[in-house]
Amino acid sequence: MRLGDFGEFGLIARLTENLETRPDVALGIGDDAALLDPGPGMLVAATVDALIEGRHFQLTNSTPEEIGRKALAVNLSDLAAMGAEPCWALVSLLLPTALAVETLDGIYAGLRDTAQRFGVAVVGGNVAATDGPLTLDVVALGRCPRGSQITRHGAHPGDVLLVTGSLGAAAAGLLVARDPDRAAGLAQSLREQARSALVSPTPRVEAGQALASHQLVTAMLDISDGLASDLRHLCVASDVGAELDESLIPIHSAATAIASRYGRDSLALALQGGEDYELLCAVTPERQDETLATLRAVGCMPAIIGRLTMPDAGMTLRRMDGTIERLPIRGWDHLRRDDLV
Amino acid sequence: MRLGDFGEFGLIARLTENLETRPDVALGIGDDAALLDPGPGMLVAATVDALIEGRHFQLTNSTPEEIGRKALAVNLSDLAAMGAEPCWALVSLLLPTALAVETLDGIYAGLRDTAQRFGVAVVGGNVAATDGPLTLDVVALGRCPRGSQITRHGAHPGDVLLVTGSLGAAAAGLLVARDPDRAAGLAQSLREQARSALVSPTPRVEAGQALASHQLVTAMLDISDGLASDLRHLCVASDVGAELDESLIPIHSAATAIASRYGRDSLALALQGGEDYELLCAVTPERQDETLATLRAVGCMPAIIGRLTMPDAGMTLRRMDGTIERLPIRGWDHLRRDDLV
Repeated sequence: MRLGDFGEFGLIARLTENLETRPDVALGIGDDAALLDPGPGMLVAATVDALIEGRHFQLTNSTPEEIGRKALAVNLSDLAAMGAEPCWALVSLLLPTALAVETLDGIYAGLRDTAQRFGVAVVGGNVAATDGPLTLDVVALGRCPRGSQITRHGAHPGDVLLVTGSLGAAAAGLLVARDPDRAAGLAQSLREQARSALVSPTPRVEAGQALASHQLVTAMLDISDGLASDLRHLCVASDVGAELDESLIPIHSAATAIASRYGRDSLALALQGGEDYELLCAVTPERQDETLATLRAVGCMPAIIGRLTMPDAGMTLRRMDGTIERLPIRGWDHLRRDDLV
Repeated sequence: MRLGDFGEFGLIARLTENLETRPDVALGIGDDAALLDPGPGMLVAATVDALIEGRHFQLTNSTPEEIGRKALAVNLSDLAAMGAEPCWALVSLLLPTALAVETLDGIYAGLRDTAQRFGVAVVGGNVAATDGPLTLDVVALGRCPRGSQITRHGAHPGDVLLVTGSLGAAAAGLLVARDPDRAAGLAQSLREQARSALVSPTPRVEAGQALASHQLVTAMLDISDGLASDLRHLCVASDVGAELDESLIPIHSAATAIASRYGRDSLALALQGGEDYELLCAVTPERQDETLATLRAVGCMPAIIGRLTMPDAGMTLRRMDGTIERLPIRGWDHLRRDDLV
């Protein structure tokens, strides 16, 4: 069946049947607006991000479930980067009327799966028909105790930089998706790790909340545009410079293997490839060990990657041979549509 | 200049420069998520609605400013229908790269205008390029004291039904937009009233808050799909029936004149035309006069239009001649794309 065969209200009923809720949802789907109770002393964190077919996902490379999971996950990653607890989501769908309802069912199954895993209630949304590509525009709302939020602008020169996991696998997955033939002969497990990093990222929700609740880090953001580009955001917001150490940057093994096969520089995948959805944090040297231990305790494999410097030093990269060069910045630009890698 | 000539971050900087804020915005645009302080004892109201070029607006019939105003206004109307105070908005833009930046500037000028008028801070959003039509997906967040919210499900048989203003002008505006030649000779002021109702509706924010703060109404929603269709939502949610009185339904004078010129039934425009964005309320007979006075005090021209009945009576229409018939229900369906009128 195609979506055009359903009415708007029939489709909404189908998609929202038996959605899980939370005790702090005073009113969920079915009225003019949802009503949410953040609780005393809580700030509400709000973010929105869209996934567009052909630009952010391909129905040929992702299952519908993966698309649904990612649409929510990229937003939860933004909440994680504030140290917020994800609580509620609204889902705005732009639907080609020729879309098979089974595809939408799959997308919603993925959305529900991620929502359930992270304790998020889907409390509202919108459906509209479009002559354009399938688009999932997801709003995620969370909460954090006033004063415990982590922004991009609290870091200082001398702070240590760390990431919550290895980088480059999503960019490697994009290389394979664009030219699959060249990957022939690579171990299936490597290819699947790269594909999975691209189409089904895991937001570092537990890590972000753990760091915030212990007030361990001075600044934090998620790596969605690419390490170099996102580091620049941190440097601008905190008015600091940064020196990354090539030997410390954790490159995902799938990125290393695939970069080699595709004649690419694996370091570039880690620095400029987007969509890794790890967290980038600044921490004072005194709290570095506690921070690493906290991250390991929630299942991350964190790595120190450099340190912050005075702002006039700019952003630099210390190469393996000890030379220091300007950090090349090129990340994902949603309007220019540059190649990621 | 076209959007493709701008980078993502350059465009965001251009659009968000000098946006007004509110004291309860702990963190606005420029981080992973916005942080908002609803205050003690407050529920957060959340809603999202998309406007798509070619479906919800035409660049040939609306100015960019009107498009921006409407994109926010339709969401503020949903908050008004809860009796909530509109506070914050997030704007997700899906942009054809060939769009002229001046068009987007105009849209943002309209957004800012409506935001300023209703005291709303734009605290976040997203920009993405699309191969599809220009789409504005707006999230509006508001707040209301816990316990003062008005939902769709508090009405009872015997309650009086009222609307906050006259109906049908937006549907009349759509008639003219689709076949402008036929409107030749109609007074320019009538045509402009109808066009304006369609492309630049006024959300009943003050009215909704006034009704909620005095706990005057038992149920409320905004008329976006059409009076008959939205009344059905109220009847289903509150488990009541309804009888509308044809002689009481306030039909906008532009709807009457244009319906006559186009050979249409003006009552049908009022009953089935969508996008009027007036509020539909149920009130106990004892509080009817106080409710009408409250609405007049905030500049509305309210009208009693009927009453609620037992659910098994269904939804009926008492005609001018005293006969009673089933209320014809046909409203805007976002997937089937039925004609509005």
